[in-house]
Amino acid sequence: MSAARKIVRLEQPFRMHRGGRLTELTIAYETWGRLNDARDNAVLVFTGLSPSAHATSSPEDPSPGWWEEMIGAGRPIDTDRHHVICVNSLGSCYGSTGPASADSRGRRYGVAFPVLSIEDIARAGHELLRALRIVRLRAVAGPSMGGMSALAFAILFPDACGALVSLSSAARATPFAIALRSLQREMIRRDPDWRGGDYAAGEGPIQGMRLARKLGMITYRSAEEWQQRFGRERIPEERKPGDPFCIDFEIESYLESHAHKFTGQFDANCYLYLSRSMDLFDVAEHGGSVQAGLDRVRARRILVIGVETDILFPLHQQHELAEGLDGDGREVDFVPLPSLQGHDSFLVDMDRFRPEIARFFAGL
Amino acid sequence: MSAARKIVRLEQPFRMHRGGRLTELTIAYETWGRLNDARDNAVLVFTGLSPSAHATSSPEDPSPGWWEEMIGAGRPIDTDRHHVICVNSLGSCYGSTGPASADSRGRRYGVAFPVLSIEDIARAGHELLRALRIVRLRAVAGPSMGGMSALAFAILFPDACGALVSLSSAARATPFAIALRSLQREMIRRDPDWRGGDYAAGEGPIQGMRLARKLGMITYRSAEEWQQRFGRERIPEERKPGDPFCIDFEIESYLESHAHKFTGQFDANCYLYLSRSMDLFDVAEHGGSVQAGLDRVRARRILVIGVETDILFPLHQQHELAEGLDGDGREVDFVPLPSLQGHDSFLVDMDRFRPEIARFFAGL
Repeated sequence: MSAARKIVRLEQPFRMHRGGRLTELTIAYETWGRLNDARDNAVLVFTGLSPSAHATSSPEDPSPGWWEEMIGAGRPIDTDRHHVICVNSLGSCYGSTGPASADSRGRRYGVAFPVLSIEDIARAGHELLRALRIVRLRAVAGPSMGGMSALAFAILFPDACGALVSLSSAARATPFAIALRSLQREMIRRDPDWRGGDYAAGEGPIQGMRLARKLGMITYRSAEEWQQRFGRERIPEERKPGDPFCIDFEIESYLESHAHKFTGQFDANCYLYLSRSMDLFDVAEHGGSVQAGLDRVRARRILVIGVETDILFPLHQQHELAEGLDGDGREVDFVPLPSLQGHDSFLVDMDRFRPEIARFFAGL
Repeated sequence: MSAARKIVRLEQPFRMHRGGRLTELTIAYETWGRLNDARDNAVLVFTGLSPSAHATSSPEDPSPGWWEEMIGAGRPIDTDRHHVICVNSLGSCYGSTGPASADSRGRRYGVAFPVLSIEDIARAGHELLRALRIVRLRAVAGPSMGGMSALAFAILFPDACGALVSLSSAARATPFAIALRSLQREMIRRDPDWRGGDYAAGEGPIQGMRLARKLGMITYRSAEEWQQRFGRERIPEERKPGDPFCIDFEIESYLESHAHKFTGQFDANCYLYLSRSMDLFDVAEHGGSVQAGLDRVRARRILVIGVETDILFPLHQQHELAEGLDGDGREVDFVPLPSLQGHDSFLVDMDRFRPEIARFFAGL
């Protein structure tokens, strides 16, 4: 656990968007930079599915964060000017309440956790702001699932944010993305060690999670990138396990090492809930159509970035967001990027993302 | 088993491309149309990974074949003019020798089967022709893996075919396709019922095969098609199993029904071997480069068809084939199609494929 992690506990029950309630709610977060006296320089960052609130390093926790190059003094989201808050999503397992947390009787929720919606994640973020006595954000931002959460926040709390940043995200998932995530969840649920969600703490469906992570990596990057990086390179003979169906090509070794790194890091039930929340999210639920939902946003400045090689949140979805958000007092910067690294580009193609983020935040 | 299925048994041992040998080899096939007296009107069709040799119906077996609309009297590959032979791939489980067959001691090969190469499938097809006393084909043809087999045939036996038809295939697999197939194989191998390949006949890794089939369907079709067909449609409440992670969206129901249809139809070890053979295939092994390999082809007329939405055998691979095969006495028809159905288009987008195939075969 990060020494920089802070915690807010809600006194009141938290009603979930699709029914059910949590009697106690814990929200984990980290902050960087000073909140000014007017309390109006805060930037709230929602994360993708798997990261914690440790977005960047700090004196309390000098380990690199998941968006290390993007947040900090003199960096694109400049903590000399902005008070940056990153929140661990409701439903996750890095301090915020989720399926791996204990319920009021001290037992882990598991699959007894109520259905999780992106709107719940957004509302938990808003509850955090209330606890911090921040009425209006300078900006709400997020990549991937975090972009959905940021958009839900901007729709549910239109007066609470001056700007919105959506990176490689969408107003709702495509059936292709739903199919992929559904299969990832099935890999986990078919693992006998999942035990219907009732595995012991620290145990669980390791093999299912490994398979799901591999499929994740396949959908997070791009065929073009792998063609350039790996082509048909083989691993050295001495590293081959001898089984004709095991690792032979470098691309297989790459997936294996990523699956290995992920193993044991993330709770399987939390993964299932967060993954499903992305399928369920649909801006059209807020007013009857995507456009009606987007029309509720009152952020003045909006940045939408998408990537040509992203197969999970394809560029046409970024167009949909940018066009739907433009006008009616909203000014949209739309930046389609030719990054090679697919959906993951916001994490790795810093040379392209950094200047766009920096330019936008410099103007806030 | 199809009543139209014919069998050839080789007397001599069959040496495998990557080492090992099969002491006995059985090749299953079906034929349609009459072989003319000159024995020069034969068309050999190799299949994709999973179909049998039953490509189209016949009086002996009136059930529809996997390419029913393409082969028959008056159809694009017209059996009034051509003697069509479809061969069940070596390594498959529909009559030809493969991992599910018994070895010389009467035990199923399982994973003791030698490494399978596309070149072995091509050579088994050539052995079939020898048995049938056909020296030169009018054309060799195949979609997907069958296109790889047809291309290998044209490289290994340059004088044995007058024309080559490659549909949604490639000179070698991309790392993206390898990653996907590798993960499909891992899903099967991680199923405890796989038992290291030593499951009883009729049993085996059903769940792993279901998962692999679902991933297959995701890669065989296209995101665009699903957007149009399914969008975010839900299944009716009464069909929902109640589990929040089970089927909710129509796309999930679609995958489920396809996985269900596939279950028990295909032997898991055969699937593993055939899948790996596609990863291993590389025209560059025949002469040191893809171009050198393609230069060995001496078919005069070549048809290359690819599909814009194919993510498994993308269009740039069809370009590579068409450009590499053009010239040096070879005339290439290259047809990029805007079909929506991705890699599977050759099976379902008949309105686009039929006229192209018909035009090409009418000219032979």
